[in-house]
Amino acid sequence: MNETTITARPGTPFIEVVREFDAPRGRVFRAWTDPEIVPQWLGPRGMTMKVVEFTATPGGGYRYIHADDTGEYAFRGVFHNVVQDELIIQTFEYEGAPNDVCLETMTFEDLGDGRTRVHGRSVYSTVEARDAMVASGMEHGMRESMERLDEVLAR
Amino acid sequence: MNETTITARPGTPFIEVVREFDAPRGRVFRAWTDPEIVPQWLGPRGMTMKVVEFTATPGGGYRYIHADDTGEYAFRGVFHNVVQDELIIQTFEYEGAPNDVCLETMTFEDLGDGRTRVHGRSVYSTVEARDAMVASGMEHGMRESMERLDEVLAR
Repeated sequence: MNETTITARPGTPFIEVVREFDAPRGRVFRAWTDPEIVPQWLGPRGMTMKVVEFTATPGGGYRYIHADDTGEYAFRGVFHNVVQDELIIQTFEYEGAPNDVCLETMTFEDLGDGRTRVHGRSVYSTVEARDAMVASGMEHGMRESMERLDEVLAR
Repeated sequence: MNETTITARPGTPFIEVVREFDAPRGRVFRAWTDPEIVPQWLGPRGMTMKVVEFTATPGGGYRYIHADDTGEYAFRGVFHNVVQDELIIQTFEYEGAPNDVCLETMTFEDLGDGRTRVHGRSVYSTVEARDAMVASGMEHGMRESMERLDEVLAR
């Protein structure tokens, strides 16, 4: 089983996530950028995800809504850059904390033998906003998302 | 004369800029978002600015080229959020350092008596990228931009 490494050093505005997948880079990248596939894995188990908009191109944007018995949680952002199979740079906002935006950079590394490493780096405008995101339980949601993505890629 | 306060604490990825203007908030905001006015003040003296694209709306984008005898310098980004007279959240990239993106948040505060305070906060993905931007002489360019904006607002 692949491990998800999440690093959030105290006193910094960064969150780093490193994860390997037993799938070729092209398939992993597509799972991250295809609005038909993203809702199959993004978010914790037990939540539905409705995509309102998802255009993974430079200058495009996205908005989606996670929902469960406790309520609806909407997220939005814009894509600063998208390089096929290699790179995504996007903004990210939980609409429940409006204008606490972070900048996310995801790189996709071909490890050979049909394996891929994804490196994600998020930076928040303040250390406090980063701490609030960590306290919200994002770590749990991230680990479950990565496990769900394993399952999607294994199909 | 209004002072430009620039703060870039060692070991952090942040740059903060605070500046007051002797003009009402609506005029200052417009100078920041109108593609006809931005080229009149953005950048150091002695540089021309050519706007390729500039759509200051949520989901919009911008690209512009500064030029002088030493060459051309292109910049681009996308607008995550724009709230009339209040707020701009955008990405920023110098194309000479591709994918070293920063996230900029500008707030516009009405001080009364026709005066306005702008608070800008930039956060880079790494401390190193922030340090490189500081080393590039952004401080000089920023101070000259703010002086030029004073002149535009005084017309």
